[in-house]
Amino acid sequence: MSDSVALSDQYREFRRDLHRHPEPAWCEFYTTARIVEALRERDITDLHVGPDALDGDERMNVPDDEELDEWLERARDAGVDPATLDEIAGGYTGCVAVVERGEGPVVGLRVDIDALPIRESTDNDHVPAAEGFRSEREGYMHACGHDVHATIGLGVLDAVLDSDFSGTFKLFFQPSEEQVSGGKPMAESGHLDDVDYLYAVHIGLDHPSGEVVCGVEGFLAVRHFLAEFEGEPAHAGARPETGRNTVQAMAAAVQNLYAIPRHSDGPTRVNAGLVGGGTATNVIPEKSYVEGEVRGGTTELADHMSEHADRILHSAAEMHDVDVDVSTKGEAPSAESDAALADLIGEVAAEVDGVTDIVDRADLGGSEDATYLMKRVQERGGLACYVGVGTDHPGGHHTGTFDVVERDVAVGIDVLSGAITRLSTTPI
Amino acid sequence: MSDSVALSDQYREFRRDLHRHPEPAWCEFYTTARIVEALRERDITDLHVGPDALDGDERMNVPDDEELDEWLERARDAGVDPATLDEIAGGYTGCVAVVERGEGPVVGLRVDIDALPIRESTDNDHVPAAEGFRSEREGYMHACGHDVHATIGLGVLDAVLDSDFSGTFKLFFQPSEEQVSGGKPMAESGHLDDVDYLYAVHIGLDHPSGEVVCGVEGFLAVRHFLAEFEGEPAHAGARPETGRNTVQAMAAAVQNLYAIPRHSDGPTRVNAGLVGGGTATNVIPEKSYVEGEVRGGTTELADHMSEHADRILHSAAEMHDVDVDVSTKGEAPSAESDAALADLIGEVAAEVDGVTDIVDRADLGGSEDATYLMKRVQERGGLACYVGVGTDHPGGHHTGTFDVVERDVAVGIDVLSGAITRLSTTPI
Amino acid sequence: MSDSVALSDQYREFRRDLHRHPEPAWCEFYTTARIVEALRERDITDLHVGPDALDGDERMNVPDDEELDEWLERARDAGVDPATLDEIAGGYTGCVAVVERGEGPVVGLRVDIDALPIRESTDNDHVPAAEGFRSEREGYMHACGHDVHATIGLGVLDAVLDSDFSGTFKLFFQPSEEQVSGGKPMAESGHLDDVDYLYAVHIGLDHPSGEVVCGVEGFLAVRHFLAEFEGEPAHAGARPETGRNTVQAMAAAVQNLYAIPRHSDGPTRVNAGLVGGGTATNVIPEKSYVEGEVRGGTTELADHMSEHADRILHSAAEMHDVDVDVSTKGEAPSAESDAALADLIGEVAAEVDGVTDIVDRADLGGSEDATYLMKRVQERGGLACYVGVGTDHPGGHHTGTFDVVERDVAVGIDVLSGAITRLSTTPI
Amino acid sequence: MSDSVALSDQYREFRRDLHRHPEPAWCEFYTTARIVEALRERDITDLHVGPDALDGDERMNVPDDEELDEWLERARDAGVDPATLDEIAGGYTGCVAVVERGEGPVVGLRVDIDALPIRESTDNDHVPAAEGFRSEREGYMHACGHDVHATIGLGVLDAVLDSDFSGTFKLFFQPSEEQVSGGKPMAESGHLDDVDYLYAVHIGLDHPSGEVVCGVEGFLAVRHFLAEFEGEPAHAGARPETGRNTVQAMAAAVQNLYAIPRHSDGPTRVNAGLVGGGTATNVIPEKSYVEGEVRGGTTELADHMSEHADRILHSAAEMHDVDVDVSTKGEAPSAESDAALADLIGEVAAEVDGVTDIVDRADLGGSEDATYLMKRVQERGGLACYVGVGTDHPGGHHTGTFDVVERDVAVGIDVLSGAITRLSTTPI
Repeated sequence: MSDSVALSDQYREFRRDLHRHPEPAWCEFYTTARIVEALRERDITDLHVGPDALDGDERMNVPDDEELDEWLERARDAGVDPATLDEIAGGYTGCVAVVERGEGPVVGLRVDIDALPIRESTDNDHVPAAEGFRSEREGYMHACGHDVHATIGLGVLDAVLDSDFSGTFKLFFQPSEEQVSGGKPMAESGHLDDVDYLYAVHIGLDHPSGEVVCGVEGFLAVRHFLAEFEGEPAHAGARPETGRNTVQAMAAAVQNLYAIPRHSDGPTRVNAGLVGGGTATNVIPEKSYVEGEVRGGTTELADHMSEHADRILHSAAEMHDVDVDVSTKGEAPSAESDAALADLIGEVAAEVDGVTDIVDRADLGGSEDATYLMKRVQERGGLACYVGVGTDHPGGHHTGTFDVVERDVAVGIDVLSGAITRLSTTPI
Repeated sequence: MSDSVALSDQYREFRRDLHRHPEPAWCEFYTTARIVEALRERDITDLHVGPDALDGDERMNVPDDEELDEWLERARDAGVDPATLDEIAGGYTGCVAVVERGEGPVVGLRVDIDALPIRESTDNDHVPAAEGFRSEREGYMHACGHDVHATIGLGVLDAVLDSDFSGTFKLFFQPSEEQVSGGKPMAESGHLDDVDYLYAVHIGLDHPSGEVVCGVEGFLAVRHFLAEFEGEPAHAGARPETGRNTVQAMAAAVQNLYAIPRHSDGPTRVNAGLVGGGTATNVIPEKSYVEGEVRGGTTELADHMSEHADRILHSAAEMHDVDVDVSTKGEAPSAESDAALADLIGEVAAEVDGVTDIVDRADLGGSEDATYLMKRVQERGGLACYVGVGTDHPGGHHTGTFDVVERDVAVGIDVLSGAITRLSTTPI
Repeated sequence: MSDSVALSDQYREFRRDLHRHPEPAWCEFYTTARIVEALRERDITDLHVGPDALDGDERMNVPDDEELDEWLERARDAGVDPATLDEIAGGYTGCVAVVERGEGPVVGLRVDIDALPIRESTDNDHVPAAEGFRSEREGYMHACGHDVHATIGLGVLDAVLDSDFSGTFKLFFQPSEEQVSGGKPMAESGHLDDVDYLYAVHIGLDHPSGEVVCGVEGFLAVRHFLAEFEGEPAHAGARPETGRNTVQAMAAAVQNLYAIPRHSDGPTRVNAGLVGGGTATNVIPEKSYVEGEVRGGTTELADHMSEHADRILHSAAEMHDVDVDVSTKGEAPSAESDAALADLIGEVAAEVDGVTDIVDRADLGGSEDATYLMKRVQERGGLACYVGVGTDHPGGHHTGTFDVVERDVAVGIDVLSGAITRLSTTPI
Repeated sequence: MSDSVALSDQYREFRRDLHRHPEPAWCEFYTTARIVEALRERDITDLHVGPDALDGDERMNVPDDEELDEWLERARDAGVDPATLDEIAGGYTGCVAVVERGEGPVVGLRVDIDALPIRESTDNDHVPAAEGFRSEREGYMHACGHDVHATIGLGVLDAVLDSDFSGTFKLFFQPSEEQVSGGKPMAESGHLDDVDYLYAVHIGLDHPSGEVVCGVEGFLAVRHFLAEFEGEPAHAGARPETGRNTVQAMAAAVQNLYAIPRHSDGPTRVNAGLVGGGTATNVIPEKSYVEGEVRGGTTELADHMSEHADRILHSAAEMHDVDVDVSTKGEAPSAESDAALADLIGEVAAEVDGVTDIVDRADLGGSEDATYLMKRVQERGGLACYVGVGTDHPGGHHTGTFDVVERDVAVGIDVLSGAITRLSTTPI
């Protein structure tokens, strides 16, 4: 790797500040306020914050007021701008920055900003711990690099502003990706509707430093669901027959969820990832729940799974004479990167310092709600592409030792800003 | 045991003739015709045969026409009266004989007449085989003594006719007890509605020769059901997702049927006794079925089980997007013997030759649809009692080596006719 | 009810003090220390505390050190004798008091002392709230009257000491009844081995003030179990096949636990009362658990259930290639009261003020580990009896509004001390 | 399509004769004897029949002696050579013909010869019915064209004999493909071990007349299994606890079989295609079975499914305390066609009359045990290819109206003999 690549102090400081303040989905108050502060220092045309940045009615899985308030207060205590916090209170996190620079295409970049409920390593081998920017929100961590993504966004903005870019640049800071519940409301905000070209970016993904993936593929369409069963308690010894047993319903549902027919059109997935029920050994369990997900290689395959899952959950409840409420907590379609945008990344990346390998396409094998934004653009005639920027990450994604090589943030900025500025001059 | 007890030739011949011609539920054509022939030789007031003997609409689980016709032809070939066969064709088996003898109570006796799909032993130790009256209907057998019950009925009739009985005597030859599907149509025939006292009788029941049980108890209320699932076949390799899988539905039903909540009011039972489905390993199974039963220590407990079973069967079908048809194939309530009639049996039995032990009450631990007739009588103010007559039976009930000591048939006749005649003079 | 019955101030104060300091199983530090303090003020011969009062190795379901320490510190803060706390630290709660008074039988009384994790009502209708002795341990409550039982124990001791009782009186303050895990270690302490007559007592049980039940019956033998499954996590989208899924194992176990065959010898019960598993929708669940119970009308029936449950839990784990650890968290056999002791209660109660109805026998319909002590005595030739003392309790047992009429505590003291003293003079 | 293509009378007669005598797996007695008769009329070097044609110990799912004998007698009655029947009695059907023609490669062609338990249409639109060569074995039918395959084999043999082919030609008439149980014993016969190039062929497969598929792909590896459960019967009302219930075990197995984890490496399948159990509603079911299959896009994926299935079947048995015997009834790996042989087919087919479309590759989407022979050859350094010959078949494969256009049989002969003779002169 070229030693000439380095991350300037301002981006390192910005990334590390976000890293110290990880916030879960819809609670990215500090994060959004810090981003807004940085954007306001720049020469942008428009800034849409909070309710203006997304369709609030489409938000899913928003925490209750108590939890929202706790995180808002933490952000306030951490010293960010109270006026911004007022704008985004109630879980209206995220923002959209717009730069208008005359004639030319509308080019977008989407980055995500939320963190995970994972405890960050305190080990000395873990750079954030060793260098003093470990999470200050114990039990939460930027364990998937969204602190880096936000920083790449800022860096690309600066590069665009510095360039002879002509046209409109839109920068999307999307909340709540980890729960695949922020993509849809941002996709339906209206801000995507005139975008001609959209990039999204992810750091790492098991690709080493020096690799750039020109088009991540294999996004599984996904739906997170929560099924809450409610029955009737009873003393299990004295009056078992008067109970309506939700644990039996939940178990019947789980058994049959995993047994949804396989599909000849492609891969499907199902998982009852989090279940629970009951209060005591001697009480027929009144309440139970399954929090799970279904996925498919295409949106249609995920729909096939979802329809079966709904039917199974409801009939399992009926089977044991209990009620069930099934809600969707997150959702994302599948999507494909357009070849033209992917090829452009390859061309640009070939000239970027620090890039040693250009990977044509690679499978994600998971889900991402950037797909909502990509499809929105594609359905209206635009092109979209999901780009991977490799980094030697010591721990896996979603583990307490995940980290990035900070030089690779600069690679991401260079590759994406290179492609974006070239699009303004050489539309495809 | 007193050697003085013996069974007269005519009853022995009658019983052995029935034993040679076992017929399953609703196919008791030969049996009914032979009984009718014997009744017509006697001085009875009324004889209700076939459709006149029971409420035909209440019959359950009647075989299809082809099977009915086969058995009818066998009966015809065996040489019984064709006119009687014409009357009972279509599965209208059984009959009711009425003797009116002036003032006095209406006393009834119910005996059952059907046989079982069991292959009779050919062993030389098995008396019917050794003495030449083994079943001539291979694969069918009087393995529960209903040949004896019909003979007791005839013997009691003769004794009543011979006695100074005053009142009305009704003798019920009930079909289809083994499938608990003949009791209800006979109970609802109207013939029970004026009965003041009703006895029913069973031979054996693990009580040895010499014992008389004055009131069998512990009848479990029962319901036999048949659930037939219908879905959609599909190639299991090429297009599994287009199938609608009835074997999955059936398995879900079975798992959950056995898991119906226990009840604090008393014993319950459930069994998926006979299941099947599918056609080939590589075809998603289009059809499946469960033939099963639920029981309860009381009719209410059986209803509790039955409601749960219905709901489970339907929701298991819904769970796998298939159809199900659930039908009742047989049914019987629980019932209790009235103490007054039971006590009378004890008093009479004490004076009958061959009786060595009088058992106050004993549990059946199974089901019987004599309970329908008993409850009909009891609900209208009458009394009813189920009597056991012991016999040293070498093989268990429902096995190929079941048999009775024929002297005990005479004991049964004496005990029941004794109680019945005494009721006419000393009503209780 | 006679107004002449009243509870003396000292007992009321004692009961109310315990009521203010409810402690869960194995954490009865304050309770035990207060009882020990009261016993030491009396003229008793021997006092066995902590490790001397029970067989420590037989304790089940003891909380972890952290929880034990928390409760110990609370007790210390509440001002009881530190020396006693040192003796019982580590969850060695409970004690046995012995009074030796010359020749005569050894008579025992067992009372239990633990409380429940239930939040006590703050309603003004709830006497403890209105009169200022509501629980000071928020979330815990004497909701089953064990504060009363301990008080009855003290009252009976005083009455015995005041009487001409001749023989040995042993008073057992048993911990951890609510989890049926304290009976066994106390039964195996050795202190029961010479007891000729043993009484145990319960207040309430849906019997109104004025009733005394001379022999509670229908104890279901019970076993509480905890099954902890451990498998292998995996990303549910990317690598589902590498996971070993404990939620599938748990669901298979639950489905089949409820389907353990019913038993013709009597009632059985099973409940998966508390279940849980997994961490996130997109992770194959690595850990799951079932906390449940089986019961039977007899110890043999509970054993039947327990053997099936163990086999099902282990094979469900094997089915999904995960490990399972099944442990017993509590256990109690069934037991029957001896008629002679029950009759004696009836005779004595007839003469006690405040007793208006003497109930010969009544069913508990639940479980109790006094049965361990009763069986220990009975197996060695002694007699045992479980006595119920009625009280008008406004809320049901194990609810936040449970309470007793304090006068009935005096009834309990009079009935039991009456029977105990009479046994010393008129052995049976 | 060129009218010049026609099937000569002898092949038409041969095919129609086989069509009239469809025989299921391991019962191809008439078929084998007719083929042997035809081969003996030709100038072949060696003929391996019955036990010499395959490894008898590797045969799976051979019918019982009674069924084998019935089919043998039918063949005898139909007038084929008794000496051949003696050789192949006991289910040793199939044969291998060898033509040695000097120096050159060893080239093989595999055709299969068994029929299906399907009733052939009697409709006038159905050519075999209209033209008098409908199945004479009611309930059985050549509904997958194996009569055609055998005929193609004979035609290719004649063409090779007529040509200047140099080398060795081996012609494999494989029994029992429909149950995927004949491929393995033939693959392990030794006759494949020196084969340099192997072709296998299938008619139809939803490709119309005129199409030739140069390399069928997407064979799912498959395993057919039979699980037979054995427990203990009991009276479901009187003694449910003494039963050991195989229907519960079977249902638990079915529920969990369908829930085997999906695999990220490719498609998997599972089906419990045929299940049954029990004898009567009131008997705890002593015996049950599941006949099913697992498949995978690769042999490894099928093994993944198979290991899970075995474990689930055994633990389901253990769960309900019953025994289970799991046996493999058929099996086939996945396999891929070698490009060189596929390309050769394309080249040859381009010059064959009647061929209008050459399809490079196409997916089967099912399973085939020709893969065993293909892999045997490939593992020893040879090449193999599976060829599809289109035909306008009115009914689908495995339906009663399946039929072929007989001209296409000639196409198959021409394409395959063309490729085989060219291989002898121009090895690849």
